[in-house]
Amino acid sequence: MSAINHKFELAARPVGLPKATDWNFKEEPVRELAENEVAVKILYISLDPAMRGWMNDRRSYIPPVQIGEVMRALALGRILDSRNPKFAAGELVYGPLGVQEYAVTNGRGLTRVDAAAAPLPLYLSALGMPGLTAYFGLLDIGKPQSGETVVISGAAGAVGAVAGQIAHLKGCRVVGIAGGPQKCAYLRELGFDAAIDYKAENVYRTLQQHCPKGLDIFFDNVGGDQLEAALSVLARYGRIIICGAISQYNATLAMKGPANYLSLLVNHGTMTGFVVGDYAPRWGEGLQEMAAWVREGKLKSREHIVEGLEKFPDALLMLFSGENYGKLILKVADA
Amino acid sequence: MSAINHKFELAARPVGLPKATDWNFKEEPVRELAENEVAVKILYISLDPAMRGWMNDRRSYIPPVQIGEVMRALALGRILDSRNPKFAAGELVYGPLGVQEYAVTNGRGLTRVDAAAAPLPLYLSALGMPGLTAYFGLLDIGKPQSGETVVISGAAGAVGAVAGQIAHLKGCRVVGIAGGPQKCAYLRELGFDAAIDYKAENVYRTLQQHCPKGLDIFFDNVGGDQLEAALSVLARYGRIIICGAISQYNATLAMKGPANYLSLLVNHGTMTGFVVGDYAPRWGEGLQEMAAWVREGKLKSREHIVEGLEKFPDALLMLFSGENYGKLILKVADA
Repeated sequence: MSAINHKFELAARPVGLPKATDWNFKEEPVRELAENEVAVKILYISLDPAMRGWMNDRRSYIPPVQIGEVMRALALGRILDSRNPKFAAGELVYGPLGVQEYAVTNGRGLTRVDAAAAPLPLYLSALGMPGLTAYFGLLDIGKPQSGETVVISGAAGAVGAVAGQIAHLKGCRVVGIAGGPQKCAYLRELGFDAAIDYKAENVYRTLQQHCPKGLDIFFDNVGGDQLEAALSVLARYGRIIICGAISQYNATLAMKGPANYLSLLVNHGTMTGFVVGDYAPRWGEGLQEMAAWVREGKLKSREHIVEGLEKFPDALLMLFSGENYGKLILKVADA
Repeated sequence: MSAINHKFELAARPVGLPKATDWNFKEEPVRELAENEVAVKILYISLDPAMRGWMNDRRSYIPPVQIGEVMRALALGRILDSRNPKFAAGELVYGPLGVQEYAVTNGRGLTRVDAAAAPLPLYLSALGMPGLTAYFGLLDIGKPQSGETVVISGAAGAVGAVAGQIAHLKGCRVVGIAGGPQKCAYLRELGFDAAIDYKAENVYRTLQQHCPKGLDIFFDNVGGDQLEAALSVLARYGRIIICGAISQYNATLAMKGPANYLSLLVNHGTMTGFVVGDYAPRWGEGLQEMAAWVREGKLKSREHIVEGLEKFPDALLMLFSGENYGKLILKVADA
């Protein structure tokens, strides 16, 4: 194996937004395969808000990335070489391959991907972790009923856009919160009944207007003020799905909890958190249903593709500034 | 009807702790009964943390008490006179009779009480709203399983003490949080497996010691730091029951929400609020089971009785300073 790998290692634990010095960009030859290992040439890397959490030295649902370790990321690539009987050279796979050009792994956590069934980036988007996150969060925790009002924060993001479309498919009235007129127009295009531009509008006031009978489900990717605004219009027996809190991930002071959480008490509301890994045994079921929706044109997906591994540090920041427009993906090589 | 009533009206909306000038103490003759009305001589008045919430001019599960209105309270009394065919003079009744010596009402919300079945104060305590609150919150929302770890804040209070005993009856390991060595000793007497004195101990650290595998259920009457401490040791699929937040009811600044609520996300945790009224159709079922536990000596109750209607303003404050020791009841007249 004569290929040269480039990779981003975590150099320091960021305080607030990750900065250039929190990364080490390294070059090294791709090492020889041991028995059972495969070498993967990475094509697309998924950039996700959750990555910010993995950089903190804190007990969580997954161990933190260690200093000097290649940054963890889900990615899609092609098997270059295999000494693992389960994988053959040329196959496309998806899994935790890291922010690099080549990964050598024992194959754990890799799943095969069918290039004929969908465009490859979709496997990092609606037909990947973001899609599954939306699917199980909304359906298993939210249990939407036809006619209910569903509000989604981060609605133009990879998870939010899918959650909103599924809520729509289930017969709900769907209100999305996103930043800027372009994203709000996109939500309407996707079939959302209303869109709130949190950069231009007072979210408390507009939520009240859009939810005259209160909101039955809030799918929260943002936290902070938007969570409090949602709690303030919670309907009786309302369900809040805690999927993320992107407004808080780079907080350098204490995180902000919802000061009006007693709205849960008054309304017999529920707030439930989850990560997509909780549903691993049921991913197949979710992907099957979503793939059908994609084929039937009922579920749309938009990817924002940035080219070049070296763009990683800047591209990651787009998630927190809200610059990305659809699922953010780093393209590393041509398929 | 020649009796003279004394009553406490709400004079002003309190900022922080209610003070003497927030009340008007008034004397007036008990008025003649209209058709369908009853006159009740009040014997015992229940003093509950929820009363603080009713004094705020804020949309909630029940309308606020208006300025100039008699302060709302649950109470137990004897029917003096009746023009309502459902009630006869001499009967004992329980319901929203207010902070006063005599109530004239159309009988709505009144239920008959059997003096032979239990001591009267018990109907304001384990066999009344506090007991029902504990029963439905713990069993319906918490769904305790044998062997699980249940933590209760405000554990020596009227609701907490019952919740802890029921958790114990269900085979759970029960840890109570209360203020002071006397209350902690009382918890051990009731069968709690451990007691944390929040005034003397670091609740974060002792909770970790007492919950080596995390807590499965947190029954919260207190909010604030104790809620955050509980979130920090939440077990996978842990349930938090939001019953109250007595630490926050008199906050003059913004209330404090749990800054570490993303523990719900990491642990697939759930936080659910309720008020006892949500279970009104099932109160009979709960009272029946709890009355049996009381008869069998499995459920104990302690009442802290203050004598004299005029003591009301000071007695109410005992709830917030934690001075009361058991269910706080104001005794207004002999049975």
